[in-house]
Amino acid sequence: MKAYVLLSGGIDSTTCLYLAHDEFQGKVEGLSINYGQRHVKEAEYAKKSCDALNLKHSIVDLRGVVPKTMLTDANADVPSISYADIKGVSPTYVPFRNGLLLSAITSIVHGERVKARIAGDMDEWGIYFGAHAEDAHAWAYPDCTPEFIGAMTNAIFIGTYKDVRLHTPLQWLNKQRIVELGTELGVDWTNTWSCYKGEEVHCGTCPTCRARREGFIAAGVPDPTVYAA
Amino acid sequence: MKAYVLLSGGIDSTTCLYLAHDEFQGKVEGLSINYGQRHVKEAEYAKKSCDALNLKHSIVDLRGVVPKTMLTDANADVPSISYADIKGVSPTYVPFRNGLLLSAITSIVHGERVKARIAGDMDEWGIYFGAHAEDAHAWAYPDCTPEFIGAMTNAIFIGTYKDVRLHTPLQWLNKQRIVELGTELGVDWTNTWSCYKGEEVHCGTCPTCRARREGFIAAGVPDPTVYAA
Repeated sequence: MKAYVLLSGGIDSTTCLYLAHDEFQGKVEGLSINYGQRHVKEAEYAKKSCDALNLKHSIVDLRGVVPKTMLTDANADVPSISYADIKGVSPTYVPFRNGLLLSAITSIVHGERVKARIAGDMDEWGIYFGAHAEDAHAWAYPDCTPEFIGAMTNAIFIGTYKDVRLHTPLQWLNKQRIVELGTELGVDWTNTWSCYKGEEVHCGTCPTCRARREGFIAAGVPDPTVYAA
Repeated sequence: MKAYVLLSGGIDSTTCLYLAHDEFQGKVEGLSINYGQRHVKEAEYAKKSCDALNLKHSIVDLRGVVPKTMLTDANADVPSISYADIKGVSPTYVPFRNGLLLSAITSIVHGERVKARIAGDMDEWGIYFGAHAEDAHAWAYPDCTPEFIGAMTNAIFIGTYKDVRLHTPLQWLNKQRIVELGTELGVDWTNTWSCYKGEEVHCGTCPTCRARREGFIAAGVPDPTVYAA
């Protein structure tokens, strides 16, 4: 029995890590993906949280597969607006990113699971994915919607001989509830990183910084983040 | 309007290439994946068929993501048996391979599709995938079953804002019918490669060589393949 967490190092996936650690009794690994994101420093934060829980952390390299977009092109501008102000396809959308990241993790996890079967482990293994309600709202990210998750959960379960199940425990929660849940589980928020710009400190104005800030305020949890603005 | 074909260079995907060429009026590209398979020379054959139809061909590099298995480990033995003789998980199974390959292609295709939308192309684009009935039979390859295809088609369609549809025109055909169909469409079979061993000529005894050979015989189509045994 084992679970792997798709761990960006932000608030949502780190909360997932703590949930998985709770539910899988510590038999958990964190997997971060380098897909060429400009804020790849988030993976260092992912490792900090794994270290805090004494869990293994690895980075999977998918550069060269994911197309160039605002998030993967260091020359593009990151807009200083809220998600709510974005109309149409978000400039922060990376084509089918979560489908690709989840598939890459499933290949790796199922490779381990097939080996474990030979050693007698017939348990269902898990993959934790921190998509949440605000990601899905108004189709902001199609690959975070309940519709996508339902389809992808089936594809993973069927495509691995029912060995691996996708867990999305934050699917129906907003950022406020996730900050509350993570705080309750003991997440050290200084070990998390959100900002798309990936500079020295959080910019405080990009869409994900705004969502982070507002999440702490709404939850009434002290925000330890240093913001540039 | 455009279609991309997941093109291994074997009988099935090459037949898919010709079908896509027919249905998408030549607006087609072939994509092969280097996932570390020992028979990566199949990609050279994929290019031959694209050249014959005057279509673009590219290779996507996914080495380092796909786990080591018989097909990706040059030191492993390829069994000289038929698919029918394999019990349990096939040694030729690569964990969640098709989920990963389809997701990688979807990322690339949707990146192009989002750009095309700005230029006014609102058509649905296609991905062609040559899974067939014998791949799915008795769960030989779980990621070729109708159940997996249904789920993955949904994941791709939903996860790309309904921009990209997965086409699996061979899903209910066996090898005989595919050889018949490809022959009718004008496939030059000398431009295809099947053998898992990836040596100078087809070995003639590995599971996929046997299926190839039997397909030509059942279809009553002359087999131009040179087999070592």
